[in-house]
Amino acid sequence: MKSLQQLARRGALPRYTAPRAMPLNRSGANRLWQRSFSQTPAAASQLAALDASKLSITKTTTPKEVIPPKELVFGKTFTDHMLCIEWTAEDGWHEPRITPYQNFSMDPATCVFHYAFECFEGMKAYKDKNGQVRLFRPDKNMARLNKSSARIALPNFDGEALIKMMGEMVKLDSRFVPEGRGYSLYLRPTMIGTQKTLGVGPPGSALLFVIASPVGPYYPTGFKAISLEATDYAVRAWPGGVGDKKLGANYAPCVVPQLQASSRGFQQNLWLFGEEEYVTESGTMNLFIAVKNKETGQKELVTPPLDGTILEGVTRDSILGLARERLVPKGWAVSERKMRMSEVVEASEEGRLLEVFGAGTAAIVSPVRKISYKGNLVDCGLKENEEAGEIALSMKNWIEDIQYGDEEHQWSYRV
Amino acid sequence: MKSLQQLARRGALPRYTAPRAMPLNRSGANRLWQRSFSQTPAAASQLAALDASKLSITKTTTPKEVIPPKELVFGKTFTDHMLCIEWTAEDGWHEPRITPYQNFSMDPATCVFHYAFECFEGMKAYKDKNGQVRLFRPDKNMARLNKSSARIALPNFDGEALIKMMGEMVKLDSRFVPEGRGYSLYLRPTMIGTQKTLGVGPPGSALLFVIASPVGPYYPTGFKAISLEATDYAVRAWPGGVGDKKLGANYAPCVVPQLQASSRGFQQNLWLFGEEEYVTESGTMNLFIAVKNKETGQKELVTPPLDGTILEGVTRDSILGLARERLVPKGWAVSERKMRMSEVVEASEEGRLLEVFGAGTAAIVSPVRKISYKGNLVDCGLKENEEAGEIALSMKNWIEDIQYGDEEHQWSYRV
Repeated sequence: MKSLQQLARRGALPRYTAPRAMPLNRSGANRLWQRSFSQTPAAASQLAALDASKLSITKTTTPKEVIPPKELVFGKTFTDHMLCIEWTAEDGWHEPRITPYQNFSMDPATCVFHYAFECFEGMKAYKDKNGQVRLFRPDKNMARLNKSSARIALPNFDGEALIKMMGEMVKLDSRFVPEGRGYSLYLRPTMIGTQKTLGVGPPGSALLFVIASPVGPYYPTGFKAISLEATDYAVRAWPGGVGDKKLGANYAPCVVPQLQASSRGFQQNLWLFGEEEYVTESGTMNLFIAVKNKETGQKELVTPPLDGTILEGVTRDSILGLARERLVPKGWAVSERKMRMSEVVEASEEGRLLEVFGAGTAAIVSPVRKISYKGNLVDCGLKENEEAGEIALSMKNWIEDIQYGDEEHQWSYRV
Repeated sequence: MKSLQQLARRGALPRYTAPRAMPLNRSGANRLWQRSFSQTPAAASQLAALDASKLSITKTTTPKEVIPPKELVFGKTFTDHMLCIEWTAEDGWHEPRITPYQNFSMDPATCVFHYAFECFEGMKAYKDKNGQVRLFRPDKNMARLNKSSARIALPNFDGEALIKMMGEMVKLDSRFVPEGRGYSLYLRPTMIGTQKTLGVGPPGSALLFVIASPVGPYYPTGFKAISLEATDYAVRAWPGGVGDKKLGANYAPCVVPQLQASSRGFQQNLWLFGEEEYVTESGTMNLFIAVKNKETGQKELVTPPLDGTILEGVTRDSILGLARERLVPKGWAVSERKMRMSEVVEASEEGRLLEVFGAGTAAIVSPVRKISYKGNLVDCGLKENEEAGEIALSMKNWIEDIQYGDEEHQWSYRV
């Protein structure tokens, strides 16, 4: 089975320079496609690329009040400005604009409302001790957004250009970037299809936009371990599906299983996959499990592999990188491998389960105390008076040190 | 494994009367959920139901020109009016409004742009020979929309009330309902989440809207058989997933495989499932296969079963109903069963494959000539000078007879 990435590398995937109206379900559709695909790469390259040098800025005349840091709620209030870039199949990327934060005016037939042509990223801007604003591995977010958009026939873009322009926006709105560990400006780059017709086909127009929301610490009073409910009646992702892309499509279907878990007192659900009940993700976070090997006693930090059923998390990748650099010399094994729920249960029962934590941009790490599974509560290794294990704690500190510039590191990007 | 439907019947699913701000990824989230779920059914029932008697109508002052029937393109032009009903978790359904067709004004943080809180229906209004406008089995669309919305934590509604109000809208815009067989007014009921925050949780507000687009025949010059490419590198749906719901989430990811098929000259792709390569759907249509039994020679009309990997199509259900009523007495077997691609290939090779066709609201039936599979072209039973098989042809005529009121039938609903 060839992956879409393989196909793309081989040039087998279309260049998404399809004509505007794309009535796939009409008899003339095939001719239209053929016309579209006969475009030479040369013709495609005449389309305008995303160009940061063309950025225009219109400042707000009604600046908002900055919310006191203690009152911040994730994704509820936004800064004064937003970044918008339109794309059309005829012309490519239009001139980028920073404007006052404002509503979109959209035709009810716009394809984003009907067929989920939408993908996004979550990333943060941090103020270091000198007041300098920094991003964390923004190139990873750009690469992933391009993978996501290609999978749903939305256009690709120059990631460096977008990072540059987000930097301009963050500088313009820097008074909204809260100071202090745990505080940051959450950035939400989003791409949506904007074609105003109901035929199912590649959108002939799109909009790339970035909004920003100041946020406080995920755990305002220090870590608070959560408990998970293993979900066996719903499946989030599958091989050959799109669960490894950051598409809107992956999120709405997650809410009912989360509500289910929550109604029984669990903060998140744990997605199992297949008859083998492989652990995959926790809610919308990647999952890490620290166990002692049954035979050798060696400590091992395990996370599920990128097999198409989990998101390619930036925090996941950072934790793996740091673990290989800083835990392996201490004797740890670090593995991207499949792990059955039964293996987690066995390790717990034998006292070999050291810790379990979720990983994502919002919390960095989210320690897990218990997992509800087939009517039993699986103990994940935390002591009763403990809210986080040693590895989760170290990872949070190591990553924050880099994010807030207390450790100079190539992952930190100065705006 | 319990299905969500089973859970819902047992009252285990929440009532979606969750509070407005639902920051699942903050530490206080669980308390919020618990408060939400402790609402008694009595409290929930105090929320306003969808009430057709409260419908207000604001007529357009700038009526559009009606497009000549021959120039109609599916989903490209719309009628003068639209129907909108807002919902909030606090109050339930607000007063329904028919207004001039107009743009939405939406905050860029609205959850429909980020997490694909969106589901829809496709249905048609037909003018009969007396000029009376009719719908076709609208109750089925309403039931399905309610199933779809519940699966993504959007509210349910009274389907009869919505049918009534769509009737009002169609009457108001009746000059846009084109006359003649094959012509109709396509109706697109859609529900979207409208909460303006980035936390992933059940939307505290939603919008149910209906827009309408006049459409011409799918095959303006008579049937034109299509060819399919079997897709083995991408998977549309999975048991326990949401592929059986009419969610926006299921559509954007289908476009690249369609483009792939199209780039090699095939009008649609054919979704296979699993190692067994079960046939499931063709593009966005259900699939029917007519074969002769190897041993007995009995003719059998087969369609894949509702196992969660295919959409519960209204046309599919209608074809099954008519087949059981009209083909079984003629000696046919009618089966909802899994069918491997290898069984289709074998039947073709042995001259037992009678016909293959897609089924959906747009075309009713869409005959298939060939399927590209592992480098071979599988002949689907049509003669060279034939564009449709006997069963596809009969089904189209039988269903159109009912849709256009030439046969009186309980499936036809007078507006």
